[in-house]
Amino acid sequence: MRIAIDVMGGDHAPHAHIESALSAAAQWPDTHLILVGNPEVIQPLLGNAAPANISIEPALEVIGNDDEPVKAVRRKSDSSMVVAGRLVKDGKAAAMISSGNTGALMAVGLLVVGRLKGIERPGLAPMFPTLDNVGVLALDMGANMDAKPEHLLQYAMMGSLYRNKVHGIEKPRVGLLNVGTESAKGNELTKTAYELLENAPINFIGNVEASAVLDRQCDVLVCDGFSGNILLKAMEGAASTIFKLLRQELTSSFTSKLAAGVLKPNFRNVRRKMDYNEHNGAPLLGVNGLVIKGHGSSDAVAMKTAIRQARTAIGNGLIAALTDEFNGK
Amino acid sequence: MRIAIDVMGGDHAPHAHIESALSAAAQWPDTHLILVGNPEVIQPLLGNAAPANISIEPALEVIGNDDEPVKAVRRKSDSSMVVAGRLVKDGKAAAMISSGNTGALMAVGLLVVGRLKGIERPGLAPMFPTLDNVGVLALDMGANMDAKPEHLLQYAMMGSLYRNKVHGIEKPRVGLLNVGTESAKGNELTKTAYELLENAPINFIGNVEASAVLDRQCDVLVCDGFSGNILLKAMEGAASTIFKLLRQELTSSFTSKLAAGVLKPNFRNVRRKMDYNEHNGAPLLGVNGLVIKGHGSSDAVAMKTAIRQARTAIGNGLIAALTDEFNGK
Repeated sequence: MRIAIDVMGGDHAPHAHIESALSAAAQWPDTHLILVGNPEVIQPLLGNAAPANISIEPALEVIGNDDEPVKAVRRKSDSSMVVAGRLVKDGKAAAMISSGNTGALMAVGLLVVGRLKGIERPGLAPMFPTLDNVGVLALDMGANMDAKPEHLLQYAMMGSLYRNKVHGIEKPRVGLLNVGTESAKGNELTKTAYELLENAPINFIGNVEASAVLDRQCDVLVCDGFSGNILLKAMEGAASTIFKLLRQELTSSFTSKLAAGVLKPNFRNVRRKMDYNEHNGAPLLGVNGLVIKGHGSSDAVAMKTAIRQARTAIGNGLIAALTDEFNGK
Repeated sequence: MRIAIDVMGGDHAPHAHIESALSAAAQWPDTHLILVGNPEVIQPLLGNAAPANISIEPALEVIGNDDEPVKAVRRKSDSSMVVAGRLVKDGKAAAMISSGNTGALMAVGLLVVGRLKGIERPGLAPMFPTLDNVGVLALDMGANMDAKPEHLLQYAMMGSLYRNKVHGIEKPRVGLLNVGTESAKGNELTKTAYELLENAPINFIGNVEASAVLDRQCDVLVCDGFSGNILLKAMEGAASTIFKLLRQELTSSFTSKLAAGVLKPNFRNVRRKMDYNEHNGAPLLGVNGLVIKGHGSSDAVAMKTAIRQARTAIGNGLIAALTDEFNGK
């Protein structure tokens, strides 16, 4: 199987990407990794030790985090992200991974790779951390701001298939993000979506409140892109504030400083557990090929996790299963 | 001034409510407190020491947390919450305070007290905690699930007036909850609302992301009731999860237990700071009288804070100012 990696996007590009590619190529000889980017940058980092299952696909432009997504994708046709998307579109790679500009990657999915037949709006599906360390796949997290009930139904079905094919969950429990657990709760969107989900061929468990997401009542959480963004960033903001307050409090006296020093590794563990994005790639579900978004701050370990994820999804025929499910609908 | 207190609603009813009323009556002789509830329950708790500026208004029914809001308000016409609302409606009290069923209180606001002329949808406006301890007034937090841009405009104007009259902020900074800071970001609702807010007679500072709410970039945060609920509960959920993870981590070894024991008061401080609801009543803005929601777990200190809040709002003519602003519009 062939996987394209945008080695120019993300905070630790290109070093982390090339390091992870070398490690992955050694571990999985059946996988060919295509490093997309500037060869003059990539070649010296690869050195002479580049294995046969790594190749370079030249792309001289880079889409930055401040680039306006759609404009950048249209104008920078020789950017690493667009070229990687084109490899998927042309069937030269089964998947692409990028930890660059999220908006631009969603635009690459729509405009370069293209929608999966039958899907109206692709959705971005990161994993949230849960207390039990298993995680919840939540979609959409910002690709589709004005979702219709039918879009939420498609998210539910795509999320279920993903959890089944990639994580081996037999009947993934699907929850609907809502303001209360009763079926009559919510806005017009969630009330109508509730009825659709109830009658869909999925394991729908009902509404899930934002306060209960991390308790993992469900395996797939469905929501519109606006609410999803609020959910994700509210949790990020609360976590960041709590850690700031803890820092203030724990450095307020000599004794507390001493005690806090002892607990430093414990605090680090908690912080890492809450960093749901860091170690999981988020698939853009609903495009005609596998597009995986790595967190902007992905290091080599995170990039390799994304490669592993792509391998599992390809190996288990995720895109073929999605195509079967929606084709002609 | 006369303030009605629903002494039957909330986790610590009626004890905390009566304790706070006695303390408030002693501190503010110009304030008459009307305790609404079952006299047979209230009288023994008041004892013989009840001051002249406390009276009892009999109400024999109670709306519970599991009651369906609108149905309960319609059927339980002799409930403490409905009777308190009627006192405001009839001009016999300038404000009512309840820490009972939130949905029912919003229904009391709409169906018993009535909308303020010119206001389409009232909004619930709790304070969020901020790192600097000042707080952000956020509305709507769940009264209006399918808000229109015009509703958000009214929330912005009502929130500004509240911050001005009750907290003395001269030109409250108003922010719009959104998925990015650029003006073109968001869904149809926020894009249209952005234009309305830009042209309104308020100090509009633009979009605020959910991750930045606790940094207090604004004094008033405007959003629809659905997103507001997601924001509020996502923060609650993240905070609760972090504290659970900390507990797990800090009791994982003998050393960490010892160190954590030293830091107990510090942890408690952080937790209390994040409990934004606990010590602030949330006004239901847009009804024709002052209706204040206390947190369900309000103790006597929190209830007294709500009474103080009501006094300030009444003393500074909040409802008259809101009436002037919207009357005839």
